[in-house]
Amino acid sequence: MLVVQKYGGSSVANSERIRRVARRVVDRYREGCKMIVVVSAMGDTTDNLIDMARDISNSPSKREMDMLISTGEQMSIALLAMAVRSLGENAVSLTGPQVSINTDDNHCNAKIRHMNTGRLESELNRGNIVVVAGFQGINQLNDVTTLGRGGSDTTAVALAAAVKADTCEIYTDVDGVYTTDPRVEVKARKLDCITYDEMLELANLGASVLHPRAVEYAKLHNIPVHVRSSFNYNKGTIVKEVNDMEMDLVVTGVTYDLNTAKIGIFDVPDKPGTAYRIFDALAEAKINVDMIIQSAMRNQVNNIAFTVTHDDLSKALNVVESIQNEVGFKGYTHDESVAKISIVGAGMASNPGVASTMFEAMMRESINLEMITTSDIKVSCIIKEDLTQIAVKSLHKFFNLEFKDNHAGVINE
Amino acid sequence: MLVVQKYGGSSVANSERIRRVARRVVDRYREGCKMIVVVSAMGDTTDNLIDMARDISNSPSKREMDMLISTGEQMSIALLAMAVRSLGENAVSLTGPQVSINTDDNHCNAKIRHMNTGRLESELNRGNIVVVAGFQGINQLNDVTTLGRGGSDTTAVALAAAVKADTCEIYTDVDGVYTTDPRVEVKARKLDCITYDEMLELANLGASVLHPRAVEYAKLHNIPVHVRSSFNYNKGTIVKEVNDMEMDLVVTGVTYDLNTAKIGIFDVPDKPGTAYRIFDALAEAKINVDMIIQSAMRNQVNNIAFTVTHDDLSKALNVVESIQNEVGFKGYTHDESVAKISIVGAGMASNPGVASTMFEAMMRESINLEMITTSDIKVSCIIKEDLTQIAVKSLHKFFNLEFKDNHAGVINE
Repeated sequence: MLVVQKYGGSSVANSERIRRVARRVVDRYREGCKMIVVVSAMGDTTDNLIDMARDISNSPSKREMDMLISTGEQMSIALLAMAVRSLGENAVSLTGPQVSINTDDNHCNAKIRHMNTGRLESELNRGNIVVVAGFQGINQLNDVTTLGRGGSDTTAVALAAAVKADTCEIYTDVDGVYTTDPRVEVKARKLDCITYDEMLELANLGASVLHPRAVEYAKLHNIPVHVRSSFNYNKGTIVKEVNDMEMDLVVTGVTYDLNTAKIGIFDVPDKPGTAYRIFDALAEAKINVDMIIQSAMRNQVNNIAFTVTHDDLSKALNVVESIQNEVGFKGYTHDESVAKISIVGAGMASNPGVASTMFEAMMRESINLEMITTSDIKVSCIIKEDLTQIAVKSLHKFFNLEFKDNHAGVINE
Repeated sequence: MLVVQKYGGSSVANSERIRRVARRVVDRYREGCKMIVVVSAMGDTTDNLIDMARDISNSPSKREMDMLISTGEQMSIALLAMAVRSLGENAVSLTGPQVSINTDDNHCNAKIRHMNTGRLESELNRGNIVVVAGFQGINQLNDVTTLGRGGSDTTAVALAAAVKADTCEIYTDVDGVYTTDPRVEVKARKLDCITYDEMLELANLGASVLHPRAVEYAKLHNIPVHVRSSFNYNKGTIVKEVNDMEMDLVVTGVTYDLNTAKIGIFDVPDKPGTAYRIFDALAEAKINVDMIIQSAMRNQVNNIAFTVTHDDLSKALNVVESIQNEVGFKGYTHDESVAKISIVGAGMASNPGVASTMFEAMMRESINLEMITTSDIKVSCIIKEDLTQIAVKSLHKFFNLEFKDNHAGVINE
C-alpha cells in the first residue's frame, strides 16, 4: 500500500510535534506501507520570512521571495527526516526541485505542470520514508517556485496522482469537514464523506481544512482525499467523487459568509451591452464580484444587484459612480450589513424543491431574502447580517443535519 | 572588471547590515564592474539551525544536516538580492546547486570538484549582480552538500578561479591580517601583503579572517585575495603568491596558541617502528597531534615529546597509558600550562639565522624553550603559558614589526 500523507504547519510547529508526526509516520510504515510525507513550514516560519523581506523592500521581487520562503519547508523536511531516522527507520528528505515538481514561471503562485517520479520511486524502492517539501516546485530556468496559498495540499494531491497512491491523507488541526460551523451550531456533525464539488462549495467551512486548489486537482485526477486531525486518531472526512455513504443526504452542509456587501443599481436601461459595461468596468478595477442578479422590470428598465467583499466596496462604488452617465442608470444603493447564507449538497440536482424548503425555513424565522442565486449543488441567499446565526441554526435543523445519538460512534471513534 | 566579493555572517546579520552590503555592492557595480557576491548565513542562523537539529536527534544524519543548514545561506542571498533590487539595480540569487558547484559526497565537509559557470556567466551577461550562496554545493545524486568550516571563503575563491575574476575580496569584521594579535601588542601593524604560505602558517591570526582551506584553494589556483573590513573603506591585506611589496620583511608575523598541552614520553627503546606504534595509536583515537620532537639519547633509548589540544589531552594520556607495556617505555609526563609561540615569514628560507635571532630574543627575556620545531617559513617554540605576552611583545619588537609613524597612512587611509 502506497500512502501519501500531508502535515500542515501547526502539526510540525516545534520539535515535540515533529517527533509526534515522525512516530505516526513510522507506525504506518511498520504496518507495511510505502510512505511519502509532505510537510509545510513550521508554525509561523513563512510569515516570519515574509516579514524579513518586507523589512528589506516594500515590493520584494517575487523570484527572490520564492527563494526566501521555500527555505521554510526545507527546514521542516530535514528535521522530520532526522526525527524518523532517530526512530530507527530510513528516511530521506527531498525539496520540490529535487522531486522535479515542474511548474510554470508564475513566482509565488505557480501551477504544477508535470512531475518526474524517478527519484521519488527509487527512494521508495530503497525502503526510504520519503519526506517531501510542500508548496514548492521548479520552473524551466531551474529556479525554485512556490504554489501560493494551499500549496502544500496541492503538492500532496499531485504527488498522490503522479505515483498512483492508494490513499492521500491531509492532516490538519480539525477533525474533518462539518455540516456547518461548530462555533455557530454546537450540533454540527462531522461528515464521513463529501464530494469534490460539495467541498468546493463549502469553501467557507472547508478552506482551512483543504484548499480549493487541492480539491480541484483531486477532482481532476480522481484522487480520494482523507482529511483528518494530526492530534488524534479519529476518522476524518473523505473527499471523493461519489458520495456513496451519504447519498440520502440531499443537503450536506450549511455555510455563511459575513464578508459581503450588496450594491444595487436601479432603473438601468434594458438594452444589449449594459451588464457588460458595468461588470467589465468592475473587472478592470480588479474587483471580484460574487453574486449577480438582474431582474427584468416594466418600462424597459432593469434593476441589477451584485455583491463584493467589504474591502472592495468603496472601490466598487467609485466604479459605479464613474459609469453612471455613460450607462444611464438612475441611481445606486449599497448595504454592508448583509450576510450570504448557503446550503450545499450534491443530491440537490436530483431532488427538486430543496430551494423552496430553504425559503420555507427562512420564512418561518421571518427572515427576508434580499438576493437569491442557485446552482446545481448550492442555493445562496443574502440576508441581514444580524440574522446569520438564527438562519444557520434553522437551516441546519430543517435539513436534518444535526448530530444525533446514533451517530455518536462516527464522531468519537 | 570582474569582481568576486564575499561577506561573512556578521556583515549580513540584520536588515540594516544587508542594506549596507547592498549599497557597497551597487557602488562597485556602478563603477562598471561585473559583480559576483558570495554571502554566508545571517549572524547566528547556522548555530540556531544546528540547535534545532540537536533538539530532534542526538546524532542527526549528515545528509539531512546539510539540507537543514543550507537554508541559512539561501535566506541571505534572497534578502541581499532584494536589497540590491530596491536600490534600482538588477540582481539574481543562486544557490550552490543552481551554480553547479559540484562536490564530493562528504556531507557537512564536502570538497569542491568542479564547477559549471554557464548559469553564472549568462546572468552576468544579462547585467545582473549575481548573489551566490556560500558554503554549499551539490553532489552527483543531486543532493545539497556543505563545505564545512570556512566554506563560504572557499566558495568565493573557487568562483573567482572558475570565472577568472580580476579580484576576490573577502569582507570580514577586521581590517586585515596583523603582524601579531593587537590585543596582546598594541603596536601590531596591519600587513599590506602576505604570501599564501605565510597566511597558512599564521592560521591563528588569520583563521578568523580567511579560512586555511580557502587559502590553499587560492594558492592552488593562484588567485590574489583581498581581505578587508565591511565596516569601513580601509585597504585590507592582499594574500598572494609573491609578496613583492614587503620582500625585505624576513618575519611577517608573530603568532601564539594557548590551546596546547605537552606530553613527554621518556626512555623509549630506540628500535624501528616505535614512533609509528605511538602515533598510529593516537591517530586511531582521532587525536590531532601538532608538534612532534624525538631526541636521540645515549643507551639506545629516546625521549619523544608531542603536543595536542587541551580537549584531546586526557584521551591522549589514555592512549599512551594503554600502549606503555607494548612499546616498552619507562614513563610519561604532561603539562597543560604551556603555549606555542611562532614567527612566520616567507623570507626566512633565504635568511639564515632567523631561528637563532628568535632564540636570542627569548634568552634576553629569560624564557626557557621546552620544544622547538622549524619549517621553511616558520619557527615554533613551546614556552610556559604565563610568559606568552612577554614573548609576543619581545619578538614583535625584535623583528622590527612595530607600527611606526611613517606607516600611519597605510592603516588609516
